[in-house]
Amino acid sequence: MTTTIPAAAPPLAIIAGGGVLPAEVASEVVASGRRVVLIGIHGEAEPAALEPLGRIADSVRLEWLEWGQIGRLLALLAHEGAREVVLAGSISRRPDFRAIVGDFGTLKRLPRIIAAMVGGDDSVLTRVIGLFEREGVTIVGLGDVAPRLLMGEGPQGRCRPDSSAQEAIGAAAAVVTALGTLDVGQAAVALGRRVVAIEGAEGTDAMLERVAALRAIGRIGRGDYTGVLVKGIKSGQDLRVDLPTIGPQTVIRAHEAGLAGIAAETGRVVVVQRAATLAEADRRGLFLSGFARAAGARA
Amino acid sequence: MTTTIPAAAPPLAIIAGGGVLPAEVASEVVASGRRVVLIGIHGEAEPAALEPLGRIADSVRLEWLEWGQIGRLLALLAHEGAREVVLAGSISRRPDFRAIVGDFGTLKRLPRIIAAMVGGDDSVLTRVIGLFEREGVTIVGLGDVAPRLLMGEGPQGRCRPDSSAQEAIGAAAAVVTALGTLDVGQAAVALGRRVVAIEGAEGTDAMLERVAALRAIGRIGRGDYTGVLVKGIKSGQDLRVDLPTIGPQTVIRAHEAGLAGIAAETGRVVVVQRAATLAEADRRGLFLSGFARAAGARA
Repeated sequence: MTTTIPAAAPPLAIIAGGGVLPAEVASEVVASGRRVVLIGIHGEAEPAALEPLGRIADSVRLEWLEWGQIGRLLALLAHEGAREVVLAGSISRRPDFRAIVGDFGTLKRLPRIIAAMVGGDDSVLTRVIGLFEREGVTIVGLGDVAPRLLMGEGPQGRCRPDSSAQEAIGAAAAVVTALGTLDVGQAAVALGRRVVAIEGAEGTDAMLERVAALRAIGRIGRGDYTGVLVKGIKSGQDLRVDLPTIGPQTVIRAHEAGLAGIAAETGRVVVVQRAATLAEADRRGLFLSGFARAAGARA
Repeated sequence: MTTTIPAAAPPLAIIAGGGVLPAEVASEVVASGRRVVLIGIHGEAEPAALEPLGRIADSVRLEWLEWGQIGRLLALLAHEGAREVVLAGSISRRPDFRAIVGDFGTLKRLPRIIAAMVGGDDSVLTRVIGLFEREGVTIVGLGDVAPRLLMGEGPQGRCRPDSSAQEAIGAAAAVVTALGTLDVGQAAVALGRRVVAIEGAEGTDAMLERVAALRAIGRIGRGDYTGVLVKGIKSGQDLRVDLPTIGPQTVIRAHEAGLAGIAAETGRVVVVQRAATLAEADRRGLFLSGFARAAGARA
């Protein structure tokens, strides 16, 4: 990094869960000329991914917190002058109640936290965002601070979807759109016009393994139809939390399932390890393409 | 069977694919006092299931045909005076072209058959039905000739869905309804309000195995939420072909997936081996319940 960062500019805080995404976000933000307070959640974030960034001492301050230490988190943000927070990476555990009890700042806010958790019709995440905002902290989206990590428009690598792939994309995208309001089915696989798999709790990788297995036993066409994976987001999803992700593994699994490529909603799906993902797609002859949801679709 | 059947009444023809359903339909129809021409498709229908019925010589005439012998089929129907046909059982192969070439009646109609196959926007099955109807043969539905084989209204066995199960049924039924027009997703599993699996080409049994596996690894709640399987039909599906089916295996797999029961659309889902299915459900403490799709739903 040769960028000179004015020390006085307010830093961006990144609350880091698992995977490589938090480190990628931090790199992008630092490269854009902004300081970062990188907050790893113990047991979720990967030290091996975050610690190298912590060594860029003038641009990145790395801290570790327990799940639920909201008081310590808010104190840290105030101390660092960070008013914007981005959430990145996967969270697999629930908050540790002992950490909450040991954190005076959290305990003090507990009535408000509980009210946020139990009240209203919004999702828990939307209410947690409201809780932060009442403390003067704004949650921003990946697209606001690291737009290059999101899927671009059209083909991203060397391969392009042909007309039969476009037909399959349309079929799978129709399913993703139909399920958009129902908090399920953010990904689907179509072979030609036939949708053969819809993602539930198993995740995209497991769904692609299922397609590979169904093809191997001849339950669905082996190579007769062009197959595609489509990933999108829920209708009205808050773009600041929990965006769907693709990466090199997605490309490898899609290839093993005999698919011709992957289409994902432009600006709404994260491409982790972008260079490696594109290299894998080019090497295996898969397209990787961004699409905008059709106007009039329930998006 | 003690029913006396007037020999002069026109018989019902049953074109039999795989599984136990064709034999069940034949028994029901004979019990209702109507003769049956039972036509097994070689390589699909199970001789062990059909041959015992063939021995009730005054009520059932059993014949075997190759896939694609439409000429021989129409000649047989004419000879037996059968003007109504019901399709029952699964078909896993495609017509054997050699059988078509060897059947003069089929060859003669080939231009019309090809026109039916390639023309129009309807499904192939709808067009095949039209082809039969132009020959003076009517395709009827299971509900017309053996309504007792279809799911009834409300709880069928000893167990009933409680309010948390009703909530899960609502969540999974919303997914089945949303996908209704898209020719996919006729079954879904919900744990509480969360839909965790949607059926694609893998079939209901494989989807239930997936749910069991996801529960075993703790990816979805182990027993915290009431789980249900919901099965429905496509919007506007022709009720004369390819109705979804549940049976004893479905109950066993649903139980192994930790579900509390199965809800299926009343009058639109077949319950094969009804007595065994209900006994299995009662023994394992699962409910088996018929529901009408909500008015206003896209059905």
